Amino acid sequence: MNYKKVDDKDIAFLVSVCGKDRIFAGQEIHESYGRDELVNKHLFPEVVAEVDRTEEVSQIMKYAYEHNIPVIPRGQGTGLAGGSVALDGGIMVSTVRMNKILELDEENLTLTVEPGVLLLDIVKFVQKNDLFYPPDPGEKSATIGGNISTNAGGMRAVKYGVTRDYIRGLEVVLADGQIMTMGGKTVKNSSGYCLKDMIVGSEGTLGIVTKAILKLLPLPKKNLSLLVPFPNLAQAIETVPKIIKSKSIPTAIEFMEKEIILQSEEFLGKQFPDSSANAYLLLTFDGNTKEELEEAYEKVAHICLDAGAIDALISNTQERQEAIWSARGAFLEAIKASTTELDECDVVVPRNKVADFVKYTDELQSKFDIKIKGFGHAGDGNLHVYVLRDQLGEKEWQEKLARAMDAMYAKAKEFGGEVSGEHGIGIAKKPYLEATKGSEYMALLKRVKLAFDPKNILNPGKVC
Amino acid sequence: MNYKKVDDKDIAFLVSVCGKDRIFAGQEIHESYGRDELVNKHLFPEVVAEVDRTEEVSQIMKYAYEHNIPVIPRGQGTGLAGGSVALDGGIMVSTVRMNKILELDEENLTLTVEPGVLLLDIVKFVQKNDLFYPPDPGEKSATIGGNISTNAGGMRAVKYGVTRDYIRGLEVVLADGQIMTMGGKTVKNSSGYCLKDMIVGSEGTLGIVTKAILKLLPLPKKNLSLLVPFPNLAQAIETVPKIIKSKSIPTAIEFMEKEIILQSEEFLGKQFPDSSANAYLLLTFDGNTKEELEEAYEKVAHICLDAGAIDALISNTQERQEAIWSARGAFLEAIKASTTELDECDVVVPRNKVADFVKYTDELQSKFDIKIKGFGHAGDGNLHVYVLRDQLGEKEWQEKLARAMDAMYAKAKEFGGEVSGEHGIGIAKKPYLEATKGSEYMALLKRVKLAFDPKNILNPGKVC
Repeated sequence: MNYKKVDDKDIAFLVSVCGKDRIFAGQEIHESYGRDELVNKHLFPEVVAEVDRTEEVSQIMKYAYEHNIPVIPRGQGTGLAGGSVALDGGIMVSTVRMNKILELDEENLTLTVEPGVLLLDIVKFVQKNDLFYPPDPGEKSATIGGNISTNAGGMRAVKYGVTRDYIRGLEVVLADGQIMTMGGKTVKNSSGYCLKDMIVGSEGTLGIVTKAILKLLPLPKKNLSLLVPFPNLAQAIETVPKIIKSKSIPTAIEFMEKEIILQSEEFLGKQFPDSSANAYLLLTFDGNTKEELEEAYEKVAHICLDAGAIDALISNTQERQEAIWSARGAFLEAIKASTTELDECDVVVPRNKVADFVKYTDELQSKFDIKIKGFGHAGDGNLHVYVLRDQLGEKEWQEKLARAMDAMYAKAKEFGGEVSGEHGIGIAKKPYLEATKGSEYMALLKRVKLAFDPKNILNPGKVC
Repeated sequence: MNYKKVDDKDIAFLVSVCGKDRIFAGQEIHESYGRDELVNKHLFPEVVAEVDRTEEVSQIMKYAYEHNIPVIPRGQGTGLAGGSVALDGGIMVSTVRMNKILELDEENLTLTVEPGVLLLDIVKFVQKNDLFYPPDPGEKSATIGGNISTNAGGMRAVKYGVTRDYIRGLEVVLADGQIMTMGGKTVKNSSGYCLKDMIVGSEGTLGIVTKAILKLLPLPKKNLSLLVPFPNLAQAIETVPKIIKSKSIPTAIEFMEKEIILQSEEFLGKQFPDSSANAYLLLTFDGNTKEELEEAYEKVAHICLDAGAIDALISNTQERQEAIWSARGAFLEAIKASTTELDECDVVVPRNKVADFVKYTDELQSKFDIKIKGFGHAGDGNLHVYVLRDQLGEKEWQEKLARAMDAMYAKAKEFGGEVSGEHGIGIAKKPYLEATKGSEYMALLKRVKLAFDPKNILNPGKVC
């Protein structure tokens, strides 16, 4: 695309909107604005605006629309698919300063927030009020705006669903600067196409979210975790569909192998409650009464033991649960620390195909002679698989990586899966989305994109 | 729009696709194909095709696209907004013969169905398998395709949400005949814009659903109903936000007045358990243990009694519960039987505005000297308000009706509500959608419509 380059006049306009202190151009731009948690090579915007209010976003978009300048919305930059890096220069609109919790409405069970509020602050705030915002992605320092933009998932999707399920309403600034409200505090809505659900997961390519009304639930009064060691990973994962079939739905079901637990212990300098077995399922349960919880976890523990589990270790104290889950939370960092470079695959497959998929990645290791490690959400079919560079030379690494990725995405498609379960498409997964969905599907996505953003100035080059 | 009229050649084509027995033209068209449950004046398509397979739908759409003939998808025609009547003649594609339950997948907790399966058949089938499809609109003889097309809600939205929340995947035939799969059996998905959620609630204007993968839950083991008489309606409804705030979320909270109960008793020839009070809340609770259920309903019963309820009557037998809910299910028919003609308003407002809204409709009765009756889903803010013609002459009826409707939609907007909670826009609510959303919002809906259907041949004249 032929975009206008940002010049001094444009910067003067931005300064007139936001003030000098919140506009950064050229060398003033912090290096973190050039990357996310995946993309290491720096790709900088021409100017960064740290906006404070919806009105500022609207003015900037109006201007950019008129002058044909690309705009890249950005939160904390914790994404894993390059969704918030600038491919064509332009203006980066950072919403991290829009970090106010605006209203808790206990009668409608909603929380109204600005997009820059951190997930961890939302969790803390609602818990204090005996309420619950279920989406639980590992990265708690992400902004809610970022979570909305990727339709972030997390561990509790098994029982509670994903971010989209908890967005009741949005305020969105469109490509031409219009401020539009979609949805609101109502529980139901059959009033025209669901634009709100289209914005969720659109990675800043259809509009910039400037306010969100989140749906809350009552905080479950009780919860516990069950750590279940198995002789091997296949047995562990093959147990999951049996658990789902039993109609006792845990809040989360994660799988992990010994090696990753040991790495995480080393990385954190903390002991995991058990690391004697080759593989584990880690489950949580929540509910309001002791009886309900006991019935559920006893049933599931028996299913696991019948399926060959070595033991079923209950963690019902805050402390023990934290020990386990902090280790789980450090898996990605531990893997990163163990190698020189890595690339990730975030496929999601039907839950009863997880075991087969993991077996397949194992085969790929020997087939391509490359290290592949994984852990993930066994309960919702979303796998986090990492291909590790270790000591490979650049050319060999790129070749092997490409072959491994191609093979994994093709297999996920074969199993009725999707390219991304929760990280989004960004730039990293675009070729795989195209390859798995086909040209007609992509053409429809593009037509939808143009319906929202006819000049293609919003986060261009991402998704489609 | 300038559409091509259907001629003998077109009919010959349709016969070549479906066979003679499933194509009906002119006088052969059954009168029910000319209306829905709201629209009484008959609006007929030029030809009806009772399709059997996705491939037929695809062939018909390809042909219609090429020849610029409108296509109106239709299920059982139980809609209440005129969404499935033909405004420009054309081909009506009825999917009622596509009524097979294709697969129950207990490991992924999904049910794959054709669009013509009736809601009541789905409910029966999954219950038999100890599973649960939560959406619960009053009209159980609707097809699942119709439910998807309006994003049908129902009583259990308070706790479980609406149809869109239970659609994991769709097979859709687009305007040009392409067969497209959106979503699937996976629990998570962050792979491009959520086209599936756009199709849900689009009333057949973006594509024709030919297959759906529904999300199921384990069937709650226990449930009971609580019938709570109040001295007056205001007190009853004002209690609802207190219940929500208490963090005990019932499955359903309905409100009703004495008059409508008496009419329903007369209509059904069956006694309601209690009709001594002026107003009632009817609540249901479900759960897996007795303790959980007891804790919830006792807490809520106390809140109601503290708020002035006369009593709190528990129905925990199948029989008593059925008596209550069959009466509730007959409300609309009972109102219809009590008057000469009626029009309905299906607004949804935030839950804590329901009492104010009902008070407002009461004021309108005296202000415009017209009868307005209502009942509805107090727990999710979705009201069913009926303006009754009784003995009014045509001109007076149309004038008063228009003024009452205008006033109600304006008030709903003022309260942060939406035009339709669950019935959809169709043709009946289009002017109100435009009036409340504004021209820029409608322009965006139209651009989205054209992204899916550039020739505007799919159910033209509906929604936007």
